[in-house]
Amino acid sequence: MALVWIDGRPADLLPVTDRGLAYGDGLFETIAVRQGQIALLERHLQRLGEGARRLLLPLDLAPVRAELLAFAAELGHGVAKLIVTRGDGQRGYAPPAAARCRRILSGTPPPAYPPAHRLHGVRLHPCATRLAEQPLLAGLKHLNRLEQVLARAEWQDPACAEGLMLDRSGRVIEGVFSNLFLVAGGALLTPSLERCGVAGVMRAEILARAELAGIPARVVDIDRAQLLAADEVFLCNSQFGIWPVVELEDHVWPVGNLTRTLQGLLGDLVDG
Amino acid sequence: MALVWIDGRPADLLPVTDRGLAYGDGLFETIAVRQGQIALLERHLQRLGEGARRLLLPLDLAPVRAELLAFAAELGHGVAKLIVTRGDGQRGYAPPAAARCRRILSGTPPPAYPPAHRLHGVRLHPCATRLAEQPLLAGLKHLNRLEQVLARAEWQDPACAEGLMLDRSGRVIEGVFSNLFLVAGGALLTPSLERCGVAGVMRAEILARAELAGIPARVVDIDRAQLLAADEVFLCNSQFGIWPVVELEDHVWPVGNLTRTLQGLLGDLVDG
Repeated sequence: MALVWIDGRPADLLPVTDRGLAYGDGLFETIAVRQGQIALLERHLQRLGEGARRLLLPLDLAPVRAELLAFAAELGHGVAKLIVTRGDGQRGYAPPAAARCRRILSGTPPPAYPPAHRLHGVRLHPCATRLAEQPLLAGLKHLNRLEQVLARAEWQDPACAEGLMLDRSGRVIEGVFSNLFLVAGGALLTPSLERCGVAGVMRAEILARAELAGIPARVVDIDRAQLLAADEVFLCNSQFGIWPVVELEDHVWPVGNLTRTLQGLLGDLVDG
Repeated sequence: MALVWIDGRPADLLPVTDRGLAYGDGLFETIAVRQGQIALLERHLQRLGEGARRLLLPLDLAPVRAELLAFAAELGHGVAKLIVTRGDGQRGYAPPAAARCRRILSGTPPPAYPPAHRLHGVRLHPCATRLAEQPLLAGLKHLNRLEQVLARAEWQDPACAEGLMLDRSGRVIEGVFSNLFLVAGGALLTPSLERCGVAGVMRAEILARAELAGIPARVVDIDRAQLLAADEVFLCNSQFGIWPVVELEDHVWPVGNLTRTLQGLLGDLVDG
C-alpha cells in the first residue's frame, strides 16, 4: 500500500469536485527524500509559495512545511510528490471566494535511473511538441501539463532518456522533466523561463552553487544553433541531479569538465 | 446528495493516482439535459472523440454514449458534466501503455442565468489574461484550464456576465466560458480556433443552422478593431444558447436582427 496523505491524514481518495481535477487548478512539487530528510526544502517551499501567489491560491506554507517534514520522516527514502489544489468548487471557472486548498502527498520509491546516465551521459529525443508562450504561467510547476504528456508520448526508444523541448518561436527551453544548461566560452548558460518552462529547484541550486564557486553563469535566450555549438550540455532535476547530454540526432557533445565539476558540487544532494 | 457516476456506477471519490488530477490529462464536456434528453449529443461525442484522438486517449465512445443517455434519464433536467481522464498512472508524464480511461459524470441543476442576459444582452469584462497559442491543444475542451481560471478571477462585478479573451497576438478569440460571433456586412463571423480557444458545440450548431437558413457565415481571424466595428456581437454556449453583447468598456452595440433570428433558430435547444 502506497503512502498517501490528504490534508495530513492517510487517505487515497479525493472528491470528484476537486478543482485540480476539473481545471488542473493547482501546483505540485516532486521532492527527493533521503534518510528521512528533504533535499532543497526551502527552494521547494519558495517555488510553491510563488506559484500560490501567482495563481491566487490561499495557501499557508507553515502547515505545508510541517507536513512535509513529518511525511519525509515516515517515507524514509524515495520521492514525495506534493499536489496542492484550490480544493472543492462548484461548476464554473471562478475561484470560490472561500476556497480551501487541498494538499495531497504521495510517496514512491526512489527512481531507478541507470547509473550510466549520470556517468556517460544521455541521448535526447528532439520533441516535435513545442511549448506555448504564456508568461502568466511560465516558471510555475502547475497542474496543466498536457504539453509534457504529448511530448513524452513522442518516443518509446529507451535509448533516449529525455526529450528536448523548444518553444513555439524555436528557442531552446528545457527537457520534458528536467532543465537544461550549456557551457559556452567557459560560462554556464541556461534558458530564460520568462515565457514558458518550469523553473526547477535543482536549476536554481546549480546557479547558486556555481556563483559560490566563482563559475560565471547567465540566464539567457538560447537558440538551437547555440545549443549545437555548445562545448558541454547537461540536464538537471531534483531527483537525478545532473545528466550530461552527449547526443541529439546526429550531433554529439563530450562529457565536459564543468559538467563533472558541477556534479561534484551537488554530491550531497543526490544518490551516487 | 449530488448525482455522480464514476465509470457508470454511483461514486464520488477518485483515486489520487488519476492523471486528470496529476496533469490535467483528459477532456470534459458540459452537456445540457432537458426532460431527460441530451441536447447536441452527437456534437458532444464528436468533439470528445476528436479530443481523444489528438490526446492519444484510448476512449471507446460507444459506452460513453450509452452512459450519457442513462445518466440524462436519471438527471431529468440540468447539466451533465462528463470528465474523461487517462485513468491511473505512476509518477511520470509518459502515458501508460495500458491506460484505461476513467469517466466521471456529475449532474447539477440548470444554471440560473438572469433572463435579461438573453433578452437585453450582456456587458463584457476585457480580460487582461491572454490565451497562449498552442495549435496542438487548440479547439479541445481539455482539462488544462488555468488560463480560464485566471481570466475569470479578474472581475467580481456582476454587471459583467462574461469576459472577452484575446490571444497573445491580440486576436479576438472567445469568452471565458463561451464562444463569440459578430455580424459585419450582413455576414456572421466567428474567430478561428486553430491556435487556441475551445470549439464549442453550440458554435458548431449555430454555424450549421446559419448555413441551412442561407445566412452567410465565415470562420476568420478577427482583431479588436473589427470587433468594435461590428454591427452585432453575441456569445453562445451549450447552456445558455445566445446572449447578445451590448457593452465592452465604453463601446456599445445594439441587440441586432440577426442575433434575434439566430436565438429563434435555437429555440428548441435552450430554456426560454
